[in-house]
Amino acid sequence: MASSDGVFRIGLLGHGTVGGAFEQLLPAQAERIQRSTGLRPEISGVLTRSRGSFDSILEGSDLIVELIGGIEPAREYTLRAMRSGRHVVTANKQLLSQHGEELFEAAAAGGVQFRFEGAVAGVVPVIRVLQESLAGTRVHRVHGIVNGTTNFILTEMARAGLTFEQALAEAQRLGYAEADPAEDVDGRDAAAKMAILARLAFDTPVHLHQVRYEGIERIKPDDLEYARELGLGLKLIGTAERIGERLSVRVHPAFLYRGHPLASINGSFNAVTFESDAITEITMSGPGAGGPQTATAVLGDVVSAMIPPPTATHPTRDLELVDDVVSGFYLHLEVADEPGVLARVAQVLAERDVSVKSVVQKGLRDQARLLMVVHPVLESQFRGAMEEIAELRALREPPRSIRVIDEEFD
Amino acid sequence: MASSDGVFRIGLLGHGTVGGAFEQLLPAQAERIQRSTGLRPEISGVLTRSRGSFDSILEGSDLIVELIGGIEPAREYTLRAMRSGRHVVTANKQLLSQHGEELFEAAAAGGVQFRFEGAVAGVVPVIRVLQESLAGTRVHRVHGIVNGTTNFILTEMARAGLTFEQALAEAQRLGYAEADPAEDVDGRDAAAKMAILARLAFDTPVHLHQVRYEGIERIKPDDLEYARELGLGLKLIGTAERIGERLSVRVHPAFLYRGHPLASINGSFNAVTFESDAITEITMSGPGAGGPQTATAVLGDVVSAMIPPPTATHPTRDLELVDDVVSGFYLHLEVADEPGVLARVAQVLAERDVSVKSVVQKGLRDQARLLMVVHPVLESQFRGAMEEIAELRALREPPRSIRVIDEEFD
Repeated sequence: MASSDGVFRIGLLGHGTVGGAFEQLLPAQAERIQRSTGLRPEISGVLTRSRGSFDSILEGSDLIVELIGGIEPAREYTLRAMRSGRHVVTANKQLLSQHGEELFEAAAAGGVQFRFEGAVAGVVPVIRVLQESLAGTRVHRVHGIVNGTTNFILTEMARAGLTFEQALAEAQRLGYAEADPAEDVDGRDAAAKMAILARLAFDTPVHLHQVRYEGIERIKPDDLEYARELGLGLKLIGTAERIGERLSVRVHPAFLYRGHPLASINGSFNAVTFESDAITEITMSGPGAGGPQTATAVLGDVVSAMIPPPTATHPTRDLELVDDVVSGFYLHLEVADEPGVLARVAQVLAERDVSVKSVVQKGLRDQARLLMVVHPVLESQFRGAMEEIAELRALREPPRSIRVIDEEFD
Repeated sequence: MASSDGVFRIGLLGHGTVGGAFEQLLPAQAERIQRSTGLRPEISGVLTRSRGSFDSILEGSDLIVELIGGIEPAREYTLRAMRSGRHVVTANKQLLSQHGEELFEAAAAGGVQFRFEGAVAGVVPVIRVLQESLAGTRVHRVHGIVNGTTNFILTEMARAGLTFEQALAEAQRLGYAEADPAEDVDGRDAAAKMAILARLAFDTPVHLHQVRYEGIERIKPDDLEYARELGLGLKLIGTAERIGERLSVRVHPAFLYRGHPLASINGSFNAVTFESDAITEITMSGPGAGGPQTATAVLGDVVSAMIPPPTATHPTRDLELVDDVVSGFYLHLEVADEPGVLARVAQVLAERDVSVKSVVQKGLRDQARLLMVVHPVLESQFRGAMEEIAELRALREPPRSIRVIDEEFD
């Protein structure tokens, strides 16, 4: 290993969805990374099924990114890399949940960093938070929605009343489920991720075969419907919890009451909640899969392996601060209930290029209340229209407005 | 600085709510921390208004935890600590948002770590995730609910139709608002936190005086009510976003559509959403304040300063894995519509000590549907009752059950 030329050399094993995304992402971020670490990250070699030699890639790298997946040859390459003093970053949940202890020991023996944020919940940084942010507390329970395919299917079943089979077909059509979805829908994929989280949260070796799991294949749409009447929504939940001096790690469908932090996680998103006495709970959510997302998690790990965490980076950009920005607005007007008022208000807005998204008008004796939401517009432009509207003779009170963050989610 | 005796000495400045909680938390976690870092953390001295000398505490410490708050003397002590080669951990948002660049430069010049997770969103690890996990992507927007007092007030106004003044009084009664709530309700506290987040997300110096802010004092309960009809809920939102080569940092009340990741953050919780092209978005939420919570964030920073992030800790505990755990259950029975069926089912459950939480019974011609949720019970006990119920003559279909995570939140 020689970084004396200011270059940090990364050997990439595997070139599927995540590997390809990583190869694209790295050059786009290389300059920023060089500014904060002092080293320029470069891909020194790529191993695919048909090209490249592991031996020569290993020789020319400071760090190995393993994105082959599965057990062999990923296990052999990872162990050999660590034994020759190379840091390893991986997103391989199978390998970690079945051979974790062997890998942790090899990393310790080799004195290298071993990072795997991408193995659980994609770019949602559950591993780092568990290992670092929560180093000062004792977690007693982890709940997670750690499989996006099943969360998408359950969301569709609940939303549109689809059967499991229909929702699965929809997920496959949209690319949220594999052609062979068995490991996702039967809970095994989530079980592997919970084994990894449990190991870190409870400092106890946990192997995939010790995790009990059930899938969602037998869920009926009418159960979702009836349960909604009881205030319940269904998720595939992974749980790891300390029970006295024992540990339970399991994955199964479970109902949540509406206010639970995981109840509002819909579609293919993942989320994890960590509970401890001192912190109550923290919840983290985001896209649980996807090439660019997982590649971003992998690259975050690579940067951490390049340097101790940055504590005092010097700002390098000097963006100008602006005050006048685009926003949607809610508008509340109390007006005289006479013909033409709405038309006059609408005309002022139109002249100022302020476009109306929704209107509710309510009569109240001789007065009317106009409630509007307008599409995003530059704030100064909206304020100009408001000033003009405030002058309208029909206004009974000064107009009231509140900004609207105009993003609709499912 | 000498850690040669295996002790890592922590000088504690300030002994208010967070300082007191930190002093309690550290000994309780010292053994775990020693296992993972090899060093035993100890408090080497405490500086309060009435006792202790900064000079002698500094002399005897490897790291200074600054929990005095405000600008002076916190600024002077922090700078002196860094200049003498001590790491510094703080939760001081005022200091960071007004003198951040001076502190970052002193840390870089002194070659020490400077960490401040507790300054924004309490134990929710937004600083670490922004600096480390997201090092491989370019964030283009940060949205945050970073003041728990105002979020509590808005939640109460929406839930109970209270005026601002009533909800504030309630918040003060319950300890969610200070006797002098000005900095919270006028948006200045949130503005300081957004200045810190913006600096890190956009690598550009941002001073508190550059952040435009509005508070929630003028929000009317009827606006919340009308807006709900339009599908909108109100939050005090901090925003930092890149607009071309310019930057906008601001805090103001804003409506969110129901599906927005921040729309479901209620009560005194905080939450932050990071958006970037590669990752879509990640959201993190949890308690934004509180002594033990913020002290946990501070301790996580201290542990990180003690060692480079742990990459291969050896498991030290060997908890036994258990399969039979306690859970609530949803139960779906299709039964003959004849007298006494509910009574027989209820009797079986009672004999097995399974307690019913809610029941819905629906008639369907000659058949009835019984939907029940039972209180948490050991799974084997529930399965035993299910087997007995399955034998009942009145059953028309095998019983169906799904676990219920029986925690209700607001």
